[in-house]
Amino acid sequence: MRTYLECVSCFVRQALDAARRTTSDPAVHQRVLRQTLRLAAEMPFDRPPPWMGQQIHRLLREATGSDDPYRQAKREANELALRLYPALKQRVRESAEPFETALRLAIAGNVIDLGVKSQLDDDEVHRAIDGALTDTLDTGALGDLRQAVRAAKDILYLADNAGEIVLDRLLIEEMPADRVTVVVKGKPIINDATREDAEAAGLTALVRVIDNGSDVPGTILEMCSAPFRDRFVRCDLVVSKGQGNYETLGGVDGKVFFLLKAKCPVIARDIRCRIGQMVICRDDPNRDPAGSR
Amino acid sequence: MRTYLECVSCFVRQALDAARRTTSDPAVHQRVLRQTLRLAAEMPFDRPPPWMGQQIHRLLREATGSDDPYRQAKREANELALRLYPALKQRVRESAEPFETALRLAIAGNVIDLGVKSQLDDDEVHRAIDGALTDTLDTGALGDLRQAVRAAKDILYLADNAGEIVLDRLLIEEMPADRVTVVVKGKPIINDATREDAEAAGLTALVRVIDNGSDVPGTILEMCSAPFRDRFVRCDLVVSKGQGNYETLGGVDGKVFFLLKAKCPVIARDIRCRIGQMVICRDDPNRDPAGSR
Repeated sequence: MRTYLECVSCFVRQALDAARRTTSDPAVHQRVLRQTLRLAAEMPFDRPPPWMGQQIHRLLREATGSDDPYRQAKREANELALRLYPALKQRVRESAEPFETALRLAIAGNVIDLGVKSQLDDDEVHRAIDGALTDTLDTGALGDLRQAVRAAKDILYLADNAGEIVLDRLLIEEMPADRVTVVVKGKPIINDATREDAEAAGLTALVRVIDNGSDVPGTILEMCSAPFRDRFVRCDLVVSKGQGNYETLGGVDGKVFFLLKAKCPVIARDIRCRIGQMVICRDDPNRDPAGSR
Repeated sequence: MRTYLECVSCFVRQALDAARRTTSDPAVHQRVLRQTLRLAAEMPFDRPPPWMGQQIHRLLREATGSDDPYRQAKREANELALRLYPALKQRVRESAEPFETALRLAIAGNVIDLGVKSQLDDDEVHRAIDGALTDTLDTGALGDLRQAVRAAKDILYLADNAGEIVLDRLLIEEMPADRVTVVVKGKPIINDATREDAEAAGLTALVRVIDNGSDVPGTILEMCSAPFRDRFVRCDLVVSKGQGNYETLGGVDGKVFFLLKAKCPVIARDIRCRIGQMVICRDDPNRDPAGSR
């Protein structure tokens, strides 16, 4: 997905939010803001929004001298999700449709976006989970994904955020363990899951975990490592979590299924769904993008 | 008021909104957006937000070749407000507190912000007016303003937007006509009222109307004409409408009373009021600005 013009004010807002999250030094806030404005002014808008996310967070790491400013937030998100995990696993076990229930809970992980807020109260978490269990879902696409999982010999599961990755485990456990490889980011970027988070989620003991060699908050193939690109080409199914992966992989390959919550009007327009909708959709490399209309 | 860092993403959003309002040419949208980002990157943040508004709208006028892209919107806002005027004037006449009622309706004009939306339905307008008539108001400040109006020999009334200026007339009519001078902008800037709007509102037949010689969407004294600056210094009371005038004149002189609706979190924090609150406050040039805490 290209960057829409209305994404730009959002980059500026997010850069300031991230700077304030990372340091209390107002000189750094202002420097990061001004550098973001300069970058955005020259940004090629045919690149997807996560390209800019990568640039901003590189600035931020340089400005703060911290290579992983979200480490503590990611740890807390994992801990919170791990506390929820046993009861949710029970729900999947007792469900008449364990695959669907696990998938809904994995999307709920993207709903909750455990990295965005430093603290989530229990009520909020339970509301998000209850919503995910009852919201409408494209059952046709769900059936296609279930079928594709059964048929696939080599499944890549592209994780999104820390915390969320614990709920992904519920869905991954409904897939044949010897055919699934979980993919995390190669370097810390915002609250995206890295190998450390896959370990905390207990995934490394369960399935193969690789990283994509990149610090883009999404998956820009040409910026990923050669081994990951090779795996991406050879696999027969990709399960892709979250907006960042949709923004970077949409229109790339029909073997990709996107699972996400559409959180902003630009994404909703691009997917042609409502804001707030739970989305499961197969990629269509030939479709006419909404932005070109 | 200085520009807070969170104002910057709002400039970017507003520049794109304004570009889209003004032309359907996507090349112009992108050019104005990129130029705004470059300007914002180098902007002195000790200048008030309307300084940036002036720059953006100069860009826009250049890019579109139109010296007054909001002319039609301003005309429609005046026409709408003029249709409301007779019934509102009746309400003032029948009120036990005509000055307060007129003042509330003048602030309602700022609430409605007739320039922001191209169309307002009747319900919306009536809700805004009913709200303004019943919302809490600082009665101490109201009493101070009433007293200041009685005592003043030379009152400057700084108008804000087209449409709104028709409702300002209700309050101006509660002041001694021979002691009031209404001030409009020197050149078209967004939907700010110019002489044309004062005429449409019937004010030129009622009181003196001057312009401030500037195209800032607020009042930056050093950018105003020498005759206006001279009037500002010599007068004994300034009634200032709207956020733009607050942002540029706050902390300047204790003879200024601000009337506005606090529409954004930055203004609300600076004034120390709730978002959405109707504000009447006397300027305090000695107060510690909220931003320095």
